[in-house]
Amino acid sequence: MNNNLEKMRHTLSHVLAAAVKQIYPHAKFGIGPAIDTGFYYDIDFGDTKVSDTDLAKIEKKMREIIKRKLPMTKRVVSKSEALDWARDNKQDYKVELIEELPEKEEISFYDMDDLFTDLCKGPHVNNLSETGPFKLIRVAGAYWRGDEKRPMLTRIYGVAFDTEAELEDYLKRQEEAKKRDHRKLGKELDLFCFSDLVGAGLPLFTPRGTELRELMANYSLSLRGREGFKKVWTPHITKTDLYKTSGHYAKFGDELFMVHSQVNGEDFAMKPMNCPHHAQIFASKPRTYREMPVRYMEATTDYRDEKTGELGGLSRVRSLTQDDSHVFCRKDQIKDEVKRLVGIVKELYETVGMQKLRARLSYRSDEDKYLGDKKLWDMAQKQIKQAAIDNNLEFFEQEGEAAFYGPKIDFMAEDAIGREHQLATIQLDFVQPERFGLEFINEKGEKERPVMIHHATLGSIERFLSVFIEHTGGWFPFWCAPEQVRIVTVNDKVSDYVSEIATILDGIVLEKPLKYNELRYTVDDSADSLGKKIKRATAMKIPVVLVVGPKDAEEKVVSVRLRDKEEKVKLSALSKYLCKLS
Amino acid sequence: MNNNLEKMRHTLSHVLAAAVKQIYPHAKFGIGPAIDTGFYYDIDFGDTKVSDTDLAKIEKKMREIIKRKLPMTKRVVSKSEALDWARDNKQDYKVELIEELPEKEEISFYDMDDLFTDLCKGPHVNNLSETGPFKLIRVAGAYWRGDEKRPMLTRIYGVAFDTEAELEDYLKRQEEAKKRDHRKLGKELDLFCFSDLVGAGLPLFTPRGTELRELMANYSLSLRGREGFKKVWTPHITKTDLYKTSGHYAKFGDELFMVHSQVNGEDFAMKPMNCPHHAQIFASKPRTYREMPVRYMEATTDYRDEKTGELGGLSRVRSLTQDDSHVFCRKDQIKDEVKRLVGIVKELYETVGMQKLRARLSYRSDEDKYLGDKKLWDMAQKQIKQAAIDNNLEFFEQEGEAAFYGPKIDFMAEDAIGREHQLATIQLDFVQPERFGLEFINEKGEKERPVMIHHATLGSIERFLSVFIEHTGGWFPFWCAPEQVRIVTVNDKVSDYVSEIATILDGIVLEKPLKYNELRYTVDDSADSLGKKIKRATAMKIPVVLVVGPKDAEEKVVSVRLRDKEEKVKLSALSKYLCKLS
Repeated sequence: MNNNLEKMRHTLSHVLAAAVKQIYPHAKFGIGPAIDTGFYYDIDFGDTKVSDTDLAKIEKKMREIIKRKLPMTKRVVSKSEALDWARDNKQDYKVELIEELPEKEEISFYDMDDLFTDLCKGPHVNNLSETGPFKLIRVAGAYWRGDEKRPMLTRIYGVAFDTEAELEDYLKRQEEAKKRDHRKLGKELDLFCFSDLVGAGLPLFTPRGTELRELMANYSLSLRGREGFKKVWTPHITKTDLYKTSGHYAKFGDELFMVHSQVNGEDFAMKPMNCPHHAQIFASKPRTYREMPVRYMEATTDYRDEKTGELGGLSRVRSLTQDDSHVFCRKDQIKDEVKRLVGIVKELYETVGMQKLRARLSYRSDEDKYLGDKKLWDMAQKQIKQAAIDNNLEFFEQEGEAAFYGPKIDFMAEDAIGREHQLATIQLDFVQPERFGLEFINEKGEKERPVMIHHATLGSIERFLSVFIEHTGGWFPFWCAPEQVRIVTVNDKVSDYVSEIATILDGIVLEKPLKYNELRYTVDDSADSLGKKIKRATAMKIPVVLVVGPKDAEEKVVSVRLRDKEEKVKLSALSKYLCKLS
Repeated sequence: MNNNLEKMRHTLSHVLAAAVKQIYPHAKFGIGPAIDTGFYYDIDFGDTKVSDTDLAKIEKKMREIIKRKLPMTKRVVSKSEALDWARDNKQDYKVELIEELPEKEEISFYDMDDLFTDLCKGPHVNNLSETGPFKLIRVAGAYWRGDEKRPMLTRIYGVAFDTEAELEDYLKRQEEAKKRDHRKLGKELDLFCFSDLVGAGLPLFTPRGTELRELMANYSLSLRGREGFKKVWTPHITKTDLYKTSGHYAKFGDELFMVHSQVNGEDFAMKPMNCPHHAQIFASKPRTYREMPVRYMEATTDYRDEKTGELGGLSRVRSLTQDDSHVFCRKDQIKDEVKRLVGIVKELYETVGMQKLRARLSYRSDEDKYLGDKKLWDMAQKQIKQAAIDNNLEFFEQEGEAAFYGPKIDFMAEDAIGREHQLATIQLDFVQPERFGLEFINEKGEKERPVMIHHATLGSIERFLSVFIEHTGGWFPFWCAPEQVRIVTVNDKVSDYVSEIATILDGIVLEKPLKYNELRYTVDDSADSLGKKIKRATAMKIPVVLVVGPKDAEEKVVSVRLRDKEEKVKLSALSKYLCKLS
């Protein structure tokens, strides 16, 4: 965010407060910062309920104030002056803020001429005439200082940009994002549901959603399978001893879902990740250099105890299924293995139409918090950078962003409406092999410690789906649409011809990008009108609708309706036609 | 068990006790009944440790006693006489048993002439000369009265049959079963492992074991998919509200693995079954008669809190993966649905070579414990019987064996060494649809309640594998062997020819019984001797070993070693040859 934009947004938050104060004289103000896309102000309206419908009124008042082109002037005051002002104005939250300011800190007010004064560090634009285009967008609840035990304030959000064009573009994209909201589409397309009896953050996948998630998971598995990864299977619970040994317990022990056995009195935890389980399989028999690297993969559900308030659709769930992989390799195999994984990531995101990828290479800094030999780190960091270069990856490097156990690559993928999502990850780990005493016998007959590489391509399948549903707007690529084709009859005189078409569809097996992908189709030969049937198919965003009438039967053709066009295809060419769709 | 055999076995338990008493005069006796294959006696040896190595000595003494052809005579005594005898002989356990006998019950002793007397109801054979062939087989620990808080006694097991041939046959089968022990084979064939850090009853599957379990699970899913079942996906934890509503909580609440959220303080349970979750998916949208029956399937892991002492290999685990299905259908669709499921069961067990199936049809009795309308029960019981008849099923009927929620069919499958295992099941359920208020709109526009049918084909995949590994002795059918083919080189001059063979193998995809089953093979071109390499392949029970030498390369043939034969196959015929194997 450029400096002027930030100043302007910050000033608009003061204008918002000034407008509110005129309409709701008893309002008490919390804080009102500039943010990424605009600004907000947290306000206590007392018993008055302020909602989205009040925004137009407040916005109108804001525009009136701006028209007055008032100056914004900084004024330095003493702590007692500041407190007096806050107390006189019954601004309890400001009182609290001022009281907590360190004695030596400069305290300043910003005066909007004589209309409105606020405790503020600034900086601001010099005059309200310098504020740019803005819009108030919504009202939300926010606990004072983020603390659930403090009062719930009303947060009013506004967006502001340098130009009208940017603002419009932003609002349009927001509108588009709303239409694509995966929670809305998940219901409309019958992909998943929630049950109050089962609980928040625990989605249940219907047949269509299960088809979609399995196709994505299997595609991810197939890419890794091709690269020598072998599937393993591990249970969802474990004794906490596993995490005590791995070191996770000390760091995340109080975030685990704890499992209690009423019958035996034993305690377990639900696995929040799979690496220690996979390490146990590696350790289950003696290994030699001949079998290195050993590559395991799994698509398995982990459980993470997310705060109830932070759960939302599939974006953040308690049951997250990871397409998780672990490589156990020699130190000199790191580059090749990372290269292999980067190749998988590029191929998958290319396939799902999110080919614009940026990678962050996270390295250690000179701090002490990083475990493992520094030389090993340096060597490994060089290897992952070389792997990124070899794969023509767009990347940037950040020191001090590595995990404590090793350097990593995180991938940011851009979706169809320009939002970036962090999904795939490749992480080196020098610590777990040590903790679990993993080893293999090298050529010299000596014991050697392997390096572990963690990798998830989709990341969490649920989270990936939340992105993918919004990225596609529910118009899934042909190969992974839960229902790919629907035959819609014009009337009831075409049942023989429908059977003929069905026989052809039964024989279609797509081979790309996922092999052995049998065509999924249904027939709508209900008595409803053709218009109604087509509308129904379109509502479900079925990529191919085959409209079949008596004339088509006679001529041995079908009318193919795609999302963006309609054409007649000869029955004899139908199979080839469908196999070419993507 | 015929009556005489039971008497004879029971008498042998007295002979066992008499022999023990002669060798260990201070032994205190618990109980010693006849069982399915022989008899046992629970004995307190005090500080003396008795183990399998002592059995020969005891057995020798038993045979000496039997040679004396002593009579077995019943003697009725009063309770006080009985107590005097037990106290005089320091038989504390007998004292406890006698004290608990109801006042009016006849108390009897059996005298083995004057050699040995025991408190016993009988009946027994008249003379020791009438006892048949027997053998002591093992020693185990057993809590007095099955109570963990009481003393641990030593249980000595013996087997006894009418004829020597039967005894030998039994012992041979036991020997065979030992060789086939899935825990032993699981390790030898590298199928699964356990980790002390993860915990008992929580197997981790290695790549080979995962291949096997996925092939079996996918085969089961494919059979059901063909019959209109759709995959769904449900999380492994749930609020207990789900089971409170379903009614499971009241019955099994204290057997659930409880899950505690440290972050939110909420409580969950791990799912021990999937029906309530599936019912929630059914209930997630309005249904009409047009879509009935609705059929869901899943291969998902349930968690059951088995007692630690009862866990063993894969036979009884805490993490059991069920190939679970649920049908929601109209009352008049029960027969067809059950018929469909019986067909699936028959096909699957035929495929795995366990075609000898017996089915138990369990009906309600006139007791009050059965929930749901009696007329519905009667109609349903008729329908499942007709389905069994229509499928030519070998079945028997048992009244009073139904679940409280509906009648059921359980399938017993016989393995290669004649043991019966209860695996697949089909259960009707009139209660859950009621509890969850499930409904659909019928032709008349009225709300109608569906019936639920629970079905598992393999049952628990882990338990099925324990049976299947022992059934096959680890020699898995070609289609599901984790490693189907291994190419073994005679020397290092055949690498080009090995590549040529590999290209052919890469193109092989089996279509039966599971579609799209890509051939799994490896190459052993290590420097080891041919003999060593073949031995290694045989140890892993790989169904097909292709031995390749320079002469084979010249002649474009391969030497195919199967388990029971060896033959030369032309390279051009190899693909066809392998596809025909079963």
